[in-house]
Amino acid sequence: MKDLALFDDLTKEDVTVLIVRAKKRAGLSWEGIAEKIGMSSVWTHSAAMGMNAMPAEKAEALASLLELPAEAVAVLQDSPTKVWEQAVPTDPCIYRLYEIVGVYGPTIKALIHEKFGDGIMSAIDFDMKIERVENPKGDRVKIEMSGKYLGYNAW
Amino acid sequence: MKDLALFDDLTKEDVTVLIVRAKKRAGLSWEGIAEKIGMSSVWTHSAAMGMNAMPAEKAEALASLLELPAEAVAVLQDSPTKVWEQAVPTDPCIYRLYEIVGVYGPTIKALIHEKFGDGIMSAIDFDMKIERVENPKGDRVKIEMSGKYLGYNAW
Amino acid sequence: MKDLALFDDLTKEDVTVLIVRAKKRAGLSWEGIAEKIGMSSVWTHSAAMGMNAMPAEKAEALASLLELPAEAVAVLQDSPTKVWEQAVPTDPCIYRLYEIVGVYGPTIKALIHEKFGDGIMSAIDFDMKIERVENPKGDRVKIEMSGKYLGYNAW
Amino acid sequence: MKDLALFDDLTKEDVTVLIVRAKKRAGLSWEGIAEKIGMSSVWTHSAAMGMNAMPAEKAEALASLLELPAEAVAVLQDSPTKVWEQAVPTDPCIYRLYEIVGVYGPTIKALIHEKFGDGIMSAIDFDMKIERVENPKGDRVKIEMSGKYLGYNAW
Amino acid sequence: MKDLALFDDLTKEDVTVLIVRAKKRAGLSWEGIAEKIGMSSVWTHSAAMGMNAMPAEKAEALASLLELPAEAVAVLQDSPTKVWEQAVPTDPCIYRLYEIVGVYGPTIKALIHEKFGDGIMSAIDFDMKIERVENPKGDRVKIEMSGKYLGYNAW
Amino acid sequence: MKDLALFDDLTKEDVTVLIVRAKKRAGLSWEGIAEKIGMSSVWTHSAAMGMNAMPAEKAEALASLLELPAEAVAVLQDSPTKVWEQAVPTDPCIYRLYEIVGVYGPTIKALIHEKFGDGIMSAIDFDMKIERVENPKGDRVKIEMSGKYLGYNAW
Amino acid sequence: MKDLALFDDLTKEDVTVLIVRAKKRAGLSWEGIAEKIGMSSVWTHSAAMGMNAMPAEKAEALASLLELPAEAVAVLQDSPTKVWEQAVPTDPCIYRLYEIVGVYGPTIKALIHEKFGDGIMSAIDFDMKIERVENPKGDRVKIEMSGKYLGYNAW
Amino acid sequence: MKDLALFDDLTKEDVTVLIVRAKKRAGLSWEGIAEKIGMSSVWTHSAAMGMNAMPAEKAEALASLLELPAEAVAVLQDSPTKVWEQAVPTDPCIYRLYEIVGVYGPTIKALIHEKFGDGIMSAIDFDMKIERVENPKGDRVKIEMSGKYLGYNAW
Amino acid sequence: MKDLALFDDLTKEDVTVLIVRAKKRAGLSWEGIAEKIGMSSVWTHSAAMGMNAMPAEKAEALASLLELPAEAVAVLQDSPTKVWEQAVPTDPCIYRLYEIVGVYGPTIKALIHEKFGDGIMSAIDFDMKIERVENPKGDRVKIEMSGKYLGYNAW
Amino acid sequence: MKDLALFDDLTKEDVTVLIVRAKKRAGLSWEGIAEKIGMSSVWTHSAAMGMNAMPAEKAEALASLLELPAEAVAVLQDSPTKVWEQAVPTDPCIYRLYEIVGVYGPTIKALIHEKFGDGIMSAIDFDMKIERVENPKGDRVKIEMSGKYLGYNAW
Repeated sequence: MKDLALFDDLTKEDVTVLIVRAKKRAGLSWEGIAEKIGMSSVWTHSAAMGMNAMPAEKAEALASLLELPAEAVAVLQDSPTKVWEQAVPTDPCIYRLYEIVGVYGPTIKALIHEKFGDGIMSAIDFDMKIERVENPKGDRVKIEMSGKYLGYNAW
Repeated sequence: MKDLALFDDLTKEDVTVLIVRAKKRAGLSWEGIAEKIGMSSVWTHSAAMGMNAMPAEKAEALASLLELPAEAVAVLQDSPTKVWEQAVPTDPCIYRLYEIVGVYGPTIKALIHEKFGDGIMSAIDFDMKIERVENPKGDRVKIEMSGKYLGYNAW
Repeated sequence: MKDLALFDDLTKEDVTVLIVRAKKRAGLSWEGIAEKIGMSSVWTHSAAMGMNAMPAEKAEALASLLELPAEAVAVLQDSPTKVWEQAVPTDPCIYRLYEIVGVYGPTIKALIHEKFGDGIMSAIDFDMKIERVENPKGDRVKIEMSGKYLGYNAW
Repeated sequence: MKDLALFDDLTKEDVTVLIVRAKKRAGLSWEGIAEKIGMSSVWTHSAAMGMNAMPAEKAEALASLLELPAEAVAVLQDSPTKVWEQAVPTDPCIYRLYEIVGVYGPTIKALIHEKFGDGIMSAIDFDMKIERVENPKGDRVKIEMSGKYLGYNAW
Repeated sequence: MKDLALFDDLTKEDVTVLIVRAKKRAGLSWEGIAEKIGMSSVWTHSAAMGMNAMPAEKAEALASLLELPAEAVAVLQDSPTKVWEQAVPTDPCIYRLYEIVGVYGPTIKALIHEKFGDGIMSAIDFDMKIERVENPKGDRVKIEMSGKYLGYNAW
Repeated sequence: MKDLALFDDLTKEDVTVLIVRAKKRAGLSWEGIAEKIGMSSVWTHSAAMGMNAMPAEKAEALASLLELPAEAVAVLQDSPTKVWEQAVPTDPCIYRLYEIVGVYGPTIKALIHEKFGDGIMSAIDFDMKIERVENPKGDRVKIEMSGKYLGYNAW
Repeated sequence: MKDLALFDDLTKEDVTVLIVRAKKRAGLSWEGIAEKIGMSSVWTHSAAMGMNAMPAEKAEALASLLELPAEAVAVLQDSPTKVWEQAVPTDPCIYRLYEIVGVYGPTIKALIHEKFGDGIMSAIDFDMKIERVENPKGDRVKIEMSGKYLGYNAW
Repeated sequence: MKDLALFDDLTKEDVTVLIVRAKKRAGLSWEGIAEKIGMSSVWTHSAAMGMNAMPAEKAEALASLLELPAEAVAVLQDSPTKVWEQAVPTDPCIYRLYEIVGVYGPTIKALIHEKFGDGIMSAIDFDMKIERVENPKGDRVKIEMSGKYLGYNAW
Repeated sequence: MKDLALFDDLTKEDVTVLIVRAKKRAGLSWEGIAEKIGMSSVWTHSAAMGMNAMPAEKAEALASLLELPAEAVAVLQDSPTKVWEQAVPTDPCIYRLYEIVGVYGPTIKALIHEKFGDGIMSAIDFDMKIERVENPKGDRVKIEMSGKYLGYNAW
Repeated sequence: MKDLALFDDLTKEDVTVLIVRAKKRAGLSWEGIAEKIGMSSVWTHSAAMGMNAMPAEKAEALASLLELPAEAVAVLQDSPTKVWEQAVPTDPCIYRLYEIVGVYGPTIKALIHEKFGDGIMSAIDFDMKIERVENPKGDRVKIEMSGKYLGYNAW
């Protein structure tokens, strides 16, 4: 990592490292951080990883909570260039999500068309929630996604 | 398509064609078919597309509803070999789902680890629901996934 | 191509072939067809190629203009599954467009962020126009795209 | 980044970093910089990113405006080797442009052939403009491309 | 191949087959055909393979020389969609050309920039000649390419 | 770059950097350097880029002309391991050459077979020349390649 | 490797290096280490390579056995992001395993379906054992895998 | 499928179809077939799929059991060209095996080296067994592989 | 396969099928066929597979030996377009050869450079021999390749 | 390269660099080194490149001959993880070998099957020899490979 004296060239990656280190020191969870800055845990983690831009107010709240250097506040507000794992992810936890898109993608598409007409679920005007659901046969992960329907334009 | 006299070599692809044609003739929706055989619309469409195997009872119910040939009942029960679009899907509706996995995959992973420990959400012991949610700023697609948590084994 | 007696299984690809053949026989241009059904030439060609779904009224107008079989009207209204040339297109005319996205993509992104904030130009709520512009040094192709701005959600 | 004493080996990447840092310090926008050196914002950003070569006069104007070191002026005039994101871009904003080429590429090709004959739109003798268009249903991004038509040679 | 009665759906691939078959029967070489229609052998072969569009007059001359069916004349004039061997060609003769581009590409680029400025050699406004050059140490293949220089636009 | 004291581990890449830097300082062109060491500009640039090995005499002439360190003379004579841009090149100038191989490769192959028999043009016993040809409609780049014909062996 | 004073940023990769170095110094085998911490050698090596997370007690046992720095204990418990060799492995020993999956994958799938119904063998609730089996024709490697059967859900 | 009169051109794929059809009609399982011809179920299924060659005696036993046409006996003895799913398999059941190789490949390699020295487990002089193991927490799939150890040669 | 009445459009693939069928009927081996036409077995098999062109005299000898139709003689003399398995071969027998090139390629290159200077072994002016060598520890395959050395040109 | 004081973390790559540097200083050839340690030049170069493990005695002989540091002796004996150039090699000398496998692979496979039965040539129990053969038409490279035949197992 860069020398702390050089914060004036902090990248989003540097800020992620600073956040993760501060989180460990403070003994906080992502749920805990999210609650303290008044946002969801999904969005908070995603923005902390540099995959989403933070509004100024939230960037300041996070920096203050985790005692991040001043420059980090601006960096957290920058529009990210989203780059992710090539084509087929290798991590088993992420691969299972990719498999779900492969197996159920055409089904989701067919049901969106049936319920709305020709169009898509936006991945931009979008939010998500993750919960643990107790179950006697083994607890379950529940993921809830919500995205605006966008109909294709005819012109 | 094969001559109807040769049903004894029907593949899952052939049965999908027969289902889609019968559905059109009967003027049914996927929701409607699912309701009539007492299953969810996601699973029903997926099995009709040949991406899931049907229990005997459901295969018979579907064949009876859509007047499919007798051999289709056995084919619907066969274990499918799931093959899907290579690496990066091109259809915009399915691509948005792939993008969500790319952008939010590490976040989902981090929150599963935080809530459960080291493990994954199963894509096998898994179900899904899709709904239309009314919204004055534009209706939204809501997707709800639920999968059993599986912790890594240490031995 | 399928025997005309079997129209009841027409695919989008079959309809594209029927349209292209009828267009040749009628000696029409895409501009001419588009004008007659009251839509733009970009959208008309794209829907004729099976890359966009037609509203019922336009599908009927097209079928009537080109004397397409009755079943084609329904097929033209189906939601397409959009599949296109793998990764790097080889046709020189299409490659140049791909190259423009490669070379100027980060610039378009930076200027969208500067003018609107963090977000994207929608490729769904989208339209396009292509014109020939006379120029003494050699005529020029002018492409005008317009897509709705979608800002990233924070939640 | 390199020690400032070693400017005599500055690369195009180094100069991009110097420009971005100076732009931040000066509180300028890309539109503002472009206007001050008398060029378009698209071309200015692209050349600043090292994807286009600057004429001497413009390189000097930019260096003077942003107080870049002397060597940067020569580097800005070098012919770049254009390298861009592999095959399928991951950033959602750039991906949407790639998707447009995939979905509408054959349409653009067909209409160029209809209006001009067999040939292409040049991506070299080319310019582009990006605007924000107000719209009560949500503002829109407008991209206007213009490239010289080049007809295939027969010999 | 299609039944000759169905020429009204001839594709470029069909016409290529007809040309190759007629050439064999007539015992002609590509040089001989090219000379008879008054064009170069490179362009003639390329257009016969469906990789370039023929002007009407040349398409008629070729059809008359090789007694092609009438519809072939129109097909030869269609703008082709150029598709070629994926990424790395396997045929040793074509691979050697690909290797030359790999090994000498940066050199050609550097010398074009040195002789002309920042720009490219057009592959559209382009022609080529292939000759056999006698040489006591073994005859040599001589390939001569000529393409219009296109300078990058600044705007 | 390495400290000049450590020349005894100079790689071909290091020597390329030393040559480019010295060329800039001396204000020489590739044509000029080539002429001074009595070789062609194509070969000289290629060897300077580390893509060809230099005979001892030419390595010494180049080192003396550009005041390269003594060890560079040996490095210039080493057999290179030629590595180039993966599969599809992105730089527009080099891409156009790749496109020519894609579009005209089968034509070059057919004409070599017609003029020589079954075989290839060597890319090893090979030379190339690049010229600027004046033309009132726009100057043209002329590339001339010459490679020994190698016939396939039958045994 | 990082200076030992900076353990507070140790990654899983750093810990792997520390383990391998300590193992060499202590002259231990993987079997020996595994036995000392009361786990299998497969799981112990895998966790030491950073591909599995260790329970606290095992991480402490390992750290104590190999005199790892205190921070390593926490790092060994972190959930790993599993990244492995791209697509087709090159190492001959690992490639043979990949080949077995390619050649026998459909067979394993068919027999699982025959013995259990439609489902999979879990790679999460999973363990493995490797033994040397003496054999007069040459000793053999015996690999025994055991994974929980997971049946597909119908809902 | 081919007309039964043309068996003299039967391919391995045709024979696989004949076997699967006959197996269905006879109501046999793979275990049952394997037992009847005196081989393991893994090898029997693999050879029936055309991924292994059968000794004459076993080919005859299989043909006699399933009443395959005479020519099938010779085809079953042919050496197969083994082609399998590209790079990353999509079927979830086969993917889990691929994941195991990715995650545990280096571990298997390390333990083979520890137990035998530098070498590999052969995938040619190889056999495999698959069993269902009852377990109160859910039955388990047990896969046992055995391959000859081959040490690297030094010469 | 094509109707025998249509030989006038025989492709190299058709001729390969005819040869393999005739070879089976005649009960000949590749060694036997090669001997009868006075060529090596490697070259004979390769030309029979359509990967090399036959001189007229050898094509006639082969056609006469195997009673191939007259047109096959001309087809066997055509220059082939060599297409082979993509990138990484899956068949274990061919993969081992690919692995040898991967593992020993740099060694072969280094020793060619040491013995000859900068250059390559030609794959065109090339021949190969395959033998079975008896060995008490297990017989061995011996492959002997011989290709002309081609030195890089300097000009 | 690492400071010589830190030999205790030498990798195979470091040892390769030390060998190449010492070989240059000593003015030795690979043939010369191989002869002095009593092994073949192919194996010696390959082990020096880190692609094969050395028996202790040979590692000591090499270290003593080239005055390598003590730790190198252990590193030379480690089992390597063999990683090589991705898919299609770019160096022309290595590419020609890859091309030979592509063109003649199926031929080698067919002749192995003819001479031995269904099986492969081992790439592990394997050796190779490279010679220069004088020839008035140009000297030739002779490569001789020998690998143990391994027949497929039936069980």
